[in-house]
Amino acid sequence: MLFHVEMTVNLPPTMDAQVTQDLKTREKALALALQRSGKWVHLWRLAGYYANISVIEVSGPDELHELLTSLPLFPYMSMQVRALCPHLSALAQNPG
Amino acid sequence: MLFHVEMTVNLPPTMDAQVTQDLKTREKALALALQRSGKWVHLWRLAGYYANISVIEVSGPDELHELLTSLPLFPYMSMQVRALCPHLSALAQNPG
Amino acid sequence: MLFHVEMTVNLPPTMDAQVTQDLKTREKALALALQRSGKWVHLWRLAGYYANISVIEVSGPDELHELLTSLPLFPYMSMQVRALCPHLSALAQNPG
Amino acid sequence: MLFHVEMTVNLPPTMDAQVTQDLKTREKALALALQRSGKWVHLWRLAGYYANISVIEVSGPDELHELLTSLPLFPYMSMQVRALCPHLSALAQNPG
Amino acid sequence: MLFHVEMTVNLPPTMDAQVTQDLKTREKALALALQRSGKWVHLWRLAGYYANISVIEVSGPDELHELLTSLPLFPYMSMQVRALCPHLSALAQNPG
Amino acid sequence: MLFHVEMTVNLPPTMDAQVTQDLKTREKALALALQRSGKWVHLWRLAGYYANISVIEVSGPDELHELLTSLPLFPYMSMQVRALCPHLSALAQNPG
Amino acid sequence: MLFHVEMTVNLPPTMDAQVTQDLKTREKALALALQRSGKWVHLWRLAGYYANISVIEVSGPDELHELLTSLPLFPYMSMQVRALCPHLSALAQNPG
Amino acid sequence: MLFHVEMTVNLPPTMDAQVTQDLKTREKALALALQRSGKWVHLWRLAGYYANISVIEVSGPDELHELLTSLPLFPYMSMQVRALCPHLSALAQNPG
Amino acid sequence: MLFHVEMTVNLPPTMDAQVTQDLKTREKALALALQRSGKWVHLWRLAGYYANISVIEVSGPDELHELLTSLPLFPYMSMQVRALCPHLSALAQNPG
Amino acid sequence: MLFHVEMTVNLPPTMDAQVTQDLKTREKALALALQRSGKWVHLWRLAGYYANISVIEVSGPDELHELLTSLPLFPYMSMQVRALCPHLSALAQNPG
Repeated sequence: MLFHVEMTVNLPPTMDAQVTQDLKTREKALALALQRSGKWVHLWRLAGYYANISVIEVSGPDELHELLTSLPLFPYMSMQVRALCPHLSALAQNPG
Repeated sequence: MLFHVEMTVNLPPTMDAQVTQDLKTREKALALALQRSGKWVHLWRLAGYYANISVIEVSGPDELHELLTSLPLFPYMSMQVRALCPHLSALAQNPG
Repeated sequence: MLFHVEMTVNLPPTMDAQVTQDLKTREKALALALQRSGKWVHLWRLAGYYANISVIEVSGPDELHELLTSLPLFPYMSMQVRALCPHLSALAQNPG
Repeated sequence: MLFHVEMTVNLPPTMDAQVTQDLKTREKALALALQRSGKWVHLWRLAGYYANISVIEVSGPDELHELLTSLPLFPYMSMQVRALCPHLSALAQNPG
Repeated sequence: MLFHVEMTVNLPPTMDAQVTQDLKTREKALALALQRSGKWVHLWRLAGYYANISVIEVSGPDELHELLTSLPLFPYMSMQVRALCPHLSALAQNPG
Repeated sequence: MLFHVEMTVNLPPTMDAQVTQDLKTREKALALALQRSGKWVHLWRLAGYYANISVIEVSGPDELHELLTSLPLFPYMSMQVRALCPHLSALAQNPG
Repeated sequence: MLFHVEMTVNLPPTMDAQVTQDLKTREKALALALQRSGKWVHLWRLAGYYANISVIEVSGPDELHELLTSLPLFPYMSMQVRALCPHLSALAQNPG
Repeated sequence: MLFHVEMTVNLPPTMDAQVTQDLKTREKALALALQRSGKWVHLWRLAGYYANISVIEVSGPDELHELLTSLPLFPYMSMQVRALCPHLSALAQNPG
Repeated sequence: MLFHVEMTVNLPPTMDAQVTQDLKTREKALALALQRSGKWVHLWRLAGYYANISVIEVSGPDELHELLTSLPLFPYMSMQVRALCPHLSALAQNPG
Repeated sequence: MLFHVEMTVNLPPTMDAQVTQDLKTREKALALALQRSGKWVHLWRLAGYYANISVIEVSGPDELHELLTSLPLFPYMSMQVRALCPHLSALAQNPG
């Protein structure tokens, strides 16, 4: 099932540059791996913000929570999580 | 280019049932046509809300405005529009 | 899986008394049926508000959306939907 | 009587790892003890958030305040407390 | 036990004058009766607002809900309900 | 005249324990003295919050400001101040 | 004593023109009378808004409430009331 | 001097179509005239919203208020007005 | 022309006492000088808050910005600035 | 295409003066260069705030994001980004 997640990153400007770089490198590696696994279905940047819009496909809220809290930047992000379901006017619901 | 649009529908409960039905029918027809044209890229229902999350691909803000205001339900919807751009950690930006 | 839903009812004071009564009667009947089916797991009144806190167990966001929008009072309620998962400090996660 | 409590944890990222671990260990131990005592009736994680939804059964606001402020994480949590009462459409109110 | 309730009245300006007057008369009569019974302990007007601050003493959330929803103006009021408990610095907690 | 004051305390968790204790001791001593003087008429704890609801009787806004800013915890509190006046439905306004 | 009041007018566009005109005429007459009496000390328009900033001098919250609720437009205004007191850096507090 | 004004239009869907059309025609005529006069310096549509961003050049708040309240749609718009001044990093402030 | 400014001071409790005192002394001296010059027309304390309500008379937004940013406490204050104009019901607009 | 950007600067008061000055110098140099290039079309100061209103012309959200995140003050600014399009009542849309 799909969840719509908006993640906003709040890194303290005083954070050590090396620590910051390390966090971002690990975040990117995990994000890529999760996309390759098919779980992180969409990942867009919100133009002008240090934030993203993501669509995550998981087996349920448990896996979603495990996935999100495993992100290295999780302690520095505020999240908004919402469940998605098929829209009656979506093409996939109206074949033919 | 991509825009992320969240649409929330607020139909007055006192609206005439036939008028409501007609509005919804026309809305669905146009939504399907716009999806077939490739402009309405994603359309999800927010579970539990009379609202959707959409991703729209247009040539710019002008076409976006024209598309959104052409929706029959536009006068009854509150919109949140945000521009998307590629995320540096997205798979498409990191081939190989 | 479990969803936490907060429902706030906003019935217009000008609504016809008989229509209101009919809506409430059907709402109650469906709420009882859904509780008996095991899907509507918890239902509490927020003291002093025309609102409730509910915990719903469904197979996913699709069934949740179908259940909530089937409620007769749905057009008159504002909803807040959030996904729940087991807490690491919950008793069920720490047997023995 | 029942209270609905939503707790959101805000631990400063600069907090010493050992201090953090100690706080969490003591928090979990007390949470388990209070659940075993029957006072902490429900404890769910909000998927994607460092937050929980709890239902607490106490003799009144005094005991509730004592319980909540005894939590080791209390100084790092923001709380929302609301009183619950039986819902007229709840199964327990409609036997038979 | 004590609850702190803030009630804000929103009467539609188009309401029939006689209906309004009747509602207010019944509201006042019940408010006086509940004060005489000792349950409505304090009742103040917020200067400049059609709103009041009340302190209600009841046996629990159930009785509170029953009391508040019995008010003739309840359908026209927005409520904020919060539970009170003794303050450690209050005189009653520090005799002598 | 009466003012309704809601005080929320925000002590930084990093504050020195002795300094914190000293502040609280002085706050309590002054709160008790002001209650004995009849100026701090009511003082309740909001259950589950490090906050209180107070009713203060003073000769006017000047004295109120002097009183509130003399509190040792004032620099760590956010305040909401509102003026109260007699309610037409209060018992004191309706003798007999 | 002084109170700072911000009044925002919300007249329904469907209101009968004659009723509206009559309300405004009576409002203006009373506003002028209260200014002449010295109680309505300042009255400014917020540029671009159907709203005003007022400073009212009264004997206390009771008189303030009576004055504000006597305004013909009161049922159509939302108010924000705050008590003022002399500022230690004001000229009047620092003669010489 | 310049003011930054954001105008959001809220026309009731039940408004008579002819009345709506007439309002919009008069609004457009006045907007064009004010642009030709040089007072309405910029006028942009916010993509996806029935709202605009305007920059108005007037002799002061009085003329601004007169201009804005003369707009036929004024009773149906919510406004946000803010004063602008030259930015120290603007090209005009840094010639050469 | 007149501007209505609400200034709220947020001094970090950890600020050095001497630095704080120096800031306040310079702020007060400048506030007095600006009042004597006729530019800072009104200055009131909001009772119970470390905040003030000010009315400033300047030649335009440029001078307003220069004046406000010259205040020693400016980096520690949050401001709300709004333009004022004469009210049609004000005494000065209705002589005789 | 045009984007409307509101930037609010939040520099920590404890920041080293030389670091702050260096940031501001680089910010100004880049802002001037981007204005000379024609991309930063408008730049106004919001009177009384450490904030600006900007209109940026770019080829799309990607270039906008690159431009904004290249600003030296970006880590210390909160942004609000909105897409603009021609207004039907704008002079440029109504020649002749």
